[in-house]
Amino acid sequence: MADAAVRSHKPATSRRTPAGGAPTAAHTAAEASDPRIDIDAVTNLLLGTWGETRREAREMIKDPAFWRIEGMPMAEHRERVLTQLHLLVQHGGSRRAFPAEYGGLENNGSNIAGFQELVLADPSLQIKSGVQWGLFGSAVHQLGTKEHHDKWLPGIIDMSIPGAFAMTETGHGSDVAAIGTTATYDPATEEFVIHTPFRGAWKDYLGNAALHGKAATVFAQLITGGVNYGVHCFFVPLRDDDGVFLPGIGGEDDGVKGGLNGIDNGRLHFDHVRVPRRNLLNRYGDVAADGSYTSDIPSPGRRFFTMLGALVQGRVSLDGAATTASALALHIALTYAGQRRQFDSGSGSDEVVLLDYGKHQRRLLPLLAQNYAQFFAHDELLRKFDGVFSGRTDTSEEREDLETLAAALKPLSTWNAMDTIQEAREACGGSGFLAENRLVGLHQDLDVYVTFEGDNNVLLQLVGKRLLSDFAKQFKGADAAALARYAVGHTAGRVFHGAGLRQLGQSVADFGSTARSVELGLRAEQQHELLAGRVEQMVSDVAGALRPASKLSPAEAAALFNSHQAELIEAARAHAELLQWEAFSDGVNTIADDDTKQVLTWLRDLFGLHLIEKHLAWYLINGRLSAQRAASVSRYIDRLAARLRPHAQDLVDAYGFAPEHVRAPIASGAERARQDEAREYYRALAASGEAPVSEKSLKKK
Amino acid sequence: MADAAVRSHKPATSRRTPAGGAPTAAHTAAEASDPRIDIDAVTNLLLGTWGETRREAREMIKDPAFWRIEGMPMAEHRERVLTQLHLLVQHGGSRRAFPAEYGGLENNGSNIAGFQELVLADPSLQIKSGVQWGLFGSAVHQLGTKEHHDKWLPGIIDMSIPGAFAMTETGHGSDVAAIGTTATYDPATEEFVIHTPFRGAWKDYLGNAALHGKAATVFAQLITGGVNYGVHCFFVPLRDDDGVFLPGIGGEDDGVKGGLNGIDNGRLHFDHVRVPRRNLLNRYGDVAADGSYTSDIPSPGRRFFTMLGALVQGRVSLDGAATTASALALHIALTYAGQRRQFDSGSGSDEVVLLDYGKHQRRLLPLLAQNYAQFFAHDELLRKFDGVFSGRTDTSEEREDLETLAAALKPLSTWNAMDTIQEAREACGGSGFLAENRLVGLHQDLDVYVTFEGDNNVLLQLVGKRLLSDFAKQFKGADAAALARYAVGHTAGRVFHGAGLRQLGQSVADFGSTARSVELGLRAEQQHELLAGRVEQMVSDVAGALRPASKLSPAEAAALFNSHQAELIEAARAHAELLQWEAFSDGVNTIADDDTKQVLTWLRDLFGLHLIEKHLAWYLINGRLSAQRAASVSRYIDRLAARLRPHAQDLVDAYGFAPEHVRAPIASGAERARQDEAREYYRALAASGEAPVSEKSLKKK
Repeated sequence: MADAAVRSHKPATSRRTPAGGAPTAAHTAAEASDPRIDIDAVTNLLLGTWGETRREAREMIKDPAFWRIEGMPMAEHRERVLTQLHLLVQHGGSRRAFPAEYGGLENNGSNIAGFQELVLADPSLQIKSGVQWGLFGSAVHQLGTKEHHDKWLPGIIDMSIPGAFAMTETGHGSDVAAIGTTATYDPATEEFVIHTPFRGAWKDYLGNAALHGKAATVFAQLITGGVNYGVHCFFVPLRDDDGVFLPGIGGEDDGVKGGLNGIDNGRLHFDHVRVPRRNLLNRYGDVAADGSYTSDIPSPGRRFFTMLGALVQGRVSLDGAATTASALALHIALTYAGQRRQFDSGSGSDEVVLLDYGKHQRRLLPLLAQNYAQFFAHDELLRKFDGVFSGRTDTSEEREDLETLAAALKPLSTWNAMDTIQEAREACGGSGFLAENRLVGLHQDLDVYVTFEGDNNVLLQLVGKRLLSDFAKQFKGADAAALARYAVGHTAGRVFHGAGLRQLGQSVADFGSTARSVELGLRAEQQHELLAGRVEQMVSDVAGALRPASKLSPAEAAALFNSHQAELIEAARAHAELLQWEAFSDGVNTIADDDTKQVLTWLRDLFGLHLIEKHLAWYLINGRLSAQRAASVSRYIDRLAARLRPHAQDLVDAYGFAPEHVRAPIASGAERARQDEAREYYRALAASGEAPVSEKSLKKK
Repeated sequence: MADAAVRSHKPATSRRTPAGGAPTAAHTAAEASDPRIDIDAVTNLLLGTWGETRREAREMIKDPAFWRIEGMPMAEHRERVLTQLHLLVQHGGSRRAFPAEYGGLENNGSNIAGFQELVLADPSLQIKSGVQWGLFGSAVHQLGTKEHHDKWLPGIIDMSIPGAFAMTETGHGSDVAAIGTTATYDPATEEFVIHTPFRGAWKDYLGNAALHGKAATVFAQLITGGVNYGVHCFFVPLRDDDGVFLPGIGGEDDGVKGGLNGIDNGRLHFDHVRVPRRNLLNRYGDVAADGSYTSDIPSPGRRFFTMLGALVQGRVSLDGAATTASALALHIALTYAGQRRQFDSGSGSDEVVLLDYGKHQRRLLPLLAQNYAQFFAHDELLRKFDGVFSGRTDTSEEREDLETLAAALKPLSTWNAMDTIQEAREACGGSGFLAENRLVGLHQDLDVYVTFEGDNNVLLQLVGKRLLSDFAKQFKGADAAALARYAVGHTAGRVFHGAGLRQLGQSVADFGSTARSVELGLRAEQQHELLAGRVEQMVSDVAGALRPASKLSPAEAAALFNSHQAELIEAARAHAELLQWEAFSDGVNTIADDDTKQVLTWLRDLFGLHLIEKHLAWYLINGRLSAQRAASVSRYIDRLAARLRPHAQDLVDAYGFAPEHVRAPIASGAERARQDEAREYYRALAASGEAPVSEKSLKKK
């Protein structure tokens, strides 16, 4: 019985009107004599399974040498971040994922956890590290074999071989299978000829390509004996020791970007560049000296996805980094909101602290709840990743689950980062627009996370297709009659929902006070039922709509699918939201301390209700909430926000950021000092008897 | 009978599956043999009342000297924009609003229209111009009198006196009335002593303050004879001819910002700085040599708001500039979406053009509709502004309406700009993140528009209060019994709605095909009824909830208000959306050409339905839409989007941007050329007989 609504003994409103002044609520849990979270325990919970590595990384980046300097011109910023990568090597930060024989720690989860924290220092550092060790290094490690490891991993780990990950082309981003670059085997010289046949096939947006890359892992269509075996990866040297392109290689600088300008993104093209046959990273497919092709994975499609799947860590990393960056933004905005005052309350008392405004609570606290959910969901993702890549749970099912989970969570956390950082920046007004307060820089740098390592919409569509295929498995072997029965039952269900019969029952039960109906109908189990029921029905609705496709021409089937594309993406989003909610709930259930559990249960409820409110129209249309209960959702959110208000500072303190991580003057206490100084000035002026009287008071006389 | 649903003879689906290939739809209106808009006529319509000035301004900024250079370091960018301001003076661009005796044109509407177009060249140029002539110059012009005009306007117009508008302080942004700077009259020397009493009272975020400002219009509490007469504005010299601060004046640079880095924002503080008595800009309040205060406006509150209201043009400008910037983003993203191909359709045909994807249409076309609405609404706002400031319609009612309209429209258009530019950037993938394609720069520069010149939430709250007071006027003089009857009737209405009785009737009518029910229930009149009904009910709900306030203590009343703050802001937003919709509809009704009117009616419908979809839960909870009809809203939007898809390029071409305004390589035709080159390569390869066969086809043999 840990549920929020049941355990709250004090009505929230009593806390909104403390003695003497309103709308100033209690500002801390202590003031509110509320349950209070154990901040350190929550920090441990949020840091998760690899908390120790995260603490190490955070300790390391207290060194200002790792910090982003606002306004630094691009060229300098690029050199600074390059230097930081070398510094990272010195700190042993580059080797965690790699095999022990090359000095590595073979700890995949720890590796990702450590890298993510770099986002607090400078997102350019995080992403350039990701390019070097997570993409370029990982391609050699995961797609290559012993020979490649021996030859290149040491130099990759110690940064003597900075490299680019040359997959994306100007003409093909999300659709990797369709890239134009070719690698044609020439048995006469036992070489592959890497070639760019047209402008659209230039490799593009590659970190390390414009300046620093000495080599690249180049993805190209492998052609041997007149057959195209699909996309494979090749190790291709790019520049000599003076940094000059090797013969046949050319490129261009991508120039200034919206953010991440510490990374030298650029373009590459190849004019019949020859590399030895053995430069094919041949773990999943090989070409013999005579040109014959072999692979352990006979299906070209499965082979392609296996190779891509080996590189899933990019998405895993972004999910965590986006979550941590959002946490930083919330830490800044909520700390400021707890100190900044603006407008008196109209009751003649002091000016009101921003976070006491109903609207301000509404803007920020649901985002805080969402961010907590992401921490728990991310730790689950990271454990699954570690299980697969450590070999402990390396089955094809687990791999597929991991890829689907990463494809589900990365879009949500990166989009949420955009929304959260933007809301935080707006909630800080003009000071939020100053680079020194970091919010604008975070938005600029994180922006591209939503479209790289898989465009978010494309990823969600992948998840949607997986949901559809899981759904179809339920009916495997079912005959036409069974399907027809299902369809009828399904439709009947909708009509039943839609016509309001179920609503009517709910309306009657709701006819008491709103508070009571809320507590009856929106507890944890009901939140889960609503969220899970929505996923099930959305998937089954899309599946139903697509069922005729099997009888259509490919063109007609494609058109039918296209007309339901947006719905499928929404179903995938609903699925990912459910996963976040479940992870949050599982996390809360592990908490032993009652007070901490209570507050985090309120926060989990706020997240659940926030999701339900977002999709309220769906619940109403589908008869899953009555109008009365739906109306109560928003009021319940208001009450939860007011209840959580005194805990806001504790909850952002629990992120465990040190001043060296925050570095935003407005979240440093300077704002409180200014407010105090101003209030003291007016107090002393009034006491001196020399304060001017107001014109208004004059007129009253 | 110009309604979309009625006049469309071809079902939208027929256009989604043209002969041979799907999901490729017709790409142009000509291909679709659809009605086609008269592009030039629509351009005229969008450019609005001051189209001629807009064309002049656009012609002027074809000169690259006015363009933003991406990645330019802050210091250089600031000098460049300063130079551009001088260039603007040479082109006669700075004098439109000012009196004829100083070389001005006394054309307020034209002035704003011309300035807004500068956003296409560089938003820093637009805003720095706004600081110089729209804020600093306007303060002298609107708050000063002949003596001030004679002395300073010529130098302001010709930029020999660059100036700052020193209103906002670090401690007080939105709450201007509470600023801390004092201007105390000293009758002994006939001077005002301008003073900053504490750190929070430093003037902050002021353009022209860090470097270029030679003077400032400083807002301060006017104190004379021991009485504080509230905030007034003073002309204060800042720097000598060498750019060195005058005695008693100090300041700081705000440093790098999230955008607008071509403007030298900074802070100012004053240590007992003495200015002559006559430096008080005394149009609305004056101090005689002996220190006695006089004003034509006896109420301190009304006087304060009159002074602020004289500066409304900032908000008017931002509404238009945000609309034009969003149009540019849509032009870029939709042009790219019409050329870029990604993924084949699964039917073996060509790769699919982005804009043929259902999701892509859904992402961009409702934003296009919204942007069109903003153009029409902005022209109305600008005409109202011109009427008041020209003196033609300068009544206190018109002034109040103008201020409310500006406070309603500016928040929506500036927030919409953020959402639209971000969606456009994401819709262009990696290329959208490159600065050369301008979307990231627009987002960075426009970001602060949502919190400056009045924080959007604060402005909407003002609008909400105005709506409440208008609502209350209906009951002026009504006795308690009448109010009670109203309250009862009102509650009954909600129960009637909520219990589903009205829904039931609608459900029966809806029991035919979705298409039919849509056409029955979502035409123009119904859109209007839904949008207007929502505003009315929301306002009346908030008013009802706040009614007990009059019987409460000030503190309790403030708490009650605070608990409904978010709802009041939502009501104001609903009101502004309605105004935009009505302006769009009025605009469409002026169109003579049938085809143009047809397409713009579809677009207006898309806007209306987009708004209704956004608030669908509200319509359901309040019984204004049945579940069936609500479900049809999204499907109708899909159909409208598909219907408008062939017109997308025409509709963005109608913005009338020249290549010198767009300047984004991805919207230049380069993408189409790349796609064509790639397709030609594969065609030729296939024709040569030398194309490698796919491994898959090999396995099939």
